Amino acid sequence: MKNKKYFADTPKPPYYAVIFTSIKIEEDKGYSVMSEKMIELLKSQEGFLGFESAREELGITVSYWKDEESILKWKANIEHREAQKLGKSIWYKEYKIRVAKVERDYEFKLN
Amino acid sequence: MKNKKYFADTPKPPYYAVIFTSIKIEEDKGYSVMSEKMIELLKSQEGFLGFESAREELGITVSYWKDEESILKWKANIEHREAQKLGKSIWYKEYKIRVAKVERDYEFKLN
Repeated sequence: MKNKKYFADTPKPPYYAVIFTSIKIEEDKGYSVMSEKMIELLKSQEGFLGFESAREELGITVSYWKDEESILKWKANIEHREAQKLGKSIWYKEYKIRVAKVERDYEFKLN
Repeated sequence: MKNKKYFADTPKPPYYAVIFTSIKIEEDKGYSVMSEKMIELLKSQEGFLGFESAREELGITVSYWKDEESILKWKANIEHREAQKLGKSIWYKEYKIRVAKVERDYEFKLN
């Protein structure tokens, strides 16, 4: 996916993480196109810091945000709401969303 | 992976999430065996609530915990520390760990 960067370049904590875990149907049915569109839209949102994503049968997408207010605005975004409706009626069998405050982080990078 | 359940069966928030994002080397070099071993060990830890995992090139594993103390105990577990050392010297090119407090969650399930 051309929009996928591997690690989200997040600032020093605290900031917020939205952990979105999902099981999709097997067919695409317009999901890929919508997914690209939502990623573009996401990038323009105030307070959006980045995201990380992987899918086997279970998919995990973690998006990072400056604060709770940014998350609530994104949830209420009109185009995103349309996508959420389609998600429930077409693409997802099941999903779970957890909103969490990142308190600390650390990393390792091979020299 | 026989130990993989899809969705972690977490309680009502608050609880903690450890978001572990990583890029591995391509060869296995004992990783799969250690991974299974760590999952078994993880399950016996006090305060461990469950985990969710997916990997494409980027891998994301989110483990859930009752409180910060349980996370610190797991981090200091002697067998886990051995695995961490091997992770840095053999298996991982890069990883990032974020410790976050889950404040709210919601879910969707197809009828």
